[in-house]
Amino acid sequence: MPNIAQLNKLIEQFGKLPGVGAKTAQKMAYFILAQGDSAVKEFADTLLASKNLIHCCPRCQNLTDQELCPICTDEKRAGSICVVEKPEDVEAMERTRTFHGTYHVLHGLISPVNGIGADQLKVRELMHRVAEEPVEEVILATSPNVEGQATALYLFKLLKPFEVKVTGLALGIPVGGTLEYADSLTLTRAMENRRSFE
Amino acid sequence: MPNIAQLNKLIEQFGKLPGVGAKTAQKMAYFILAQGDSAVKEFADTLLASKNLIHCCPRCQNLTDQELCPICTDEKRAGSICVVEKPEDVEAMERTRTFHGTYHVLHGLISPVNGIGADQLKVRELMHRVAEEPVEEVILATSPNVEGQATALYLFKLLKPFEVKVTGLALGIPVGGTLEYADSLTLTRAMENRRSFE
Repeated sequence: MPNIAQLNKLIEQFGKLPGVGAKTAQKMAYFILAQGDSAVKEFADTLLASKNLIHCCPRCQNLTDQELCPICTDEKRAGSICVVEKPEDVEAMERTRTFHGTYHVLHGLISPVNGIGADQLKVRELMHRVAEEPVEEVILATSPNVEGQATALYLFKLLKPFEVKVTGLALGIPVGGTLEYADSLTLTRAMENRRSFE
Repeated sequence: MPNIAQLNKLIEQFGKLPGVGAKTAQKMAYFILAQGDSAVKEFADTLLASKNLIHCCPRCQNLTDQELCPICTDEKRAGSICVVEKPEDVEAMERTRTFHGTYHVLHGLISPVNGIGADQLKVRELMHRVAEEPVEEVILATSPNVEGQATALYLFKLLKPFEVKVTGLALGIPVGGTLEYADSLTLTRAMENRRSFE
């Protein structure tokens, strides 16, 4: 650690970023100090402005800088709700250009180990939507890991009383993947859910 | 890219950091937006305060938040100047606890390819010190790569008129290294500079 208190504070801030270790944080701090005053000010201003301008869409909870997000504003998008963990997942799904319903971002997964329960997620908002909006189908598109599956199961139970179709994403071998390197669980699911050859 | 203009600006800022690609920058931006207002404000404030408080020591050009850096203030440290490329190098050298002179940070290396000449480095300040201070030895400790060697050679020529001993760091096999994986140049230098066995 350098013996300049303020420099260590800066390193500490960078160290909080995801995927940044002690060495990288130090490199970033020195990089910032080598920049001009205006560049550093721009960085600080962008941080503050982003936090100020970007908020959760009151309907789908995805991030937006508008009153209602563009997807929720689009009247052609309705009928089904795709429930995902985080805003990045909406982006990934939108890249496929195949889903024409709306989303609901939970902002996390149920994780008792990390002390995250349904209360800390946007579950209440989802239930409110299912009760109020004309929803035909809810697609539980959380990741197929332990926490994702637990969250999906929890939501599935909550959704049972409603007259709504609840589905999940298909599990199987990814396109371009090889059988040889697929894990047994994925292969088992791929076999179970095999489709008729067209 | 997400379709929120302000979010893209934030991603762009993170993308400027060293070692951060498009994917990581996006991850960092989403991480920031998931933080509380006070945490983001603290990050922004730390950036600005660091840039404001930390400056180059007027003598050795190393980064400091004081008028003169602690090494330059220490009267026991004198006699020789160790010339390095950047503040990180001072830290690395200080960790050895074996050098008791002062440093001089060039803040870069001469690199015609990148349009960096001696004028953009703290060379004038070094010459001023050699002329004014009671210096016995100047250790040219720039890295043993093309630019580091070119810079050392350039400084060596400038220092010739002065009555001062000019030295460079020893080149050889690193401690813990293996002969088998040492490159030919390093091995050649290690052979040339072989020492009497104690």
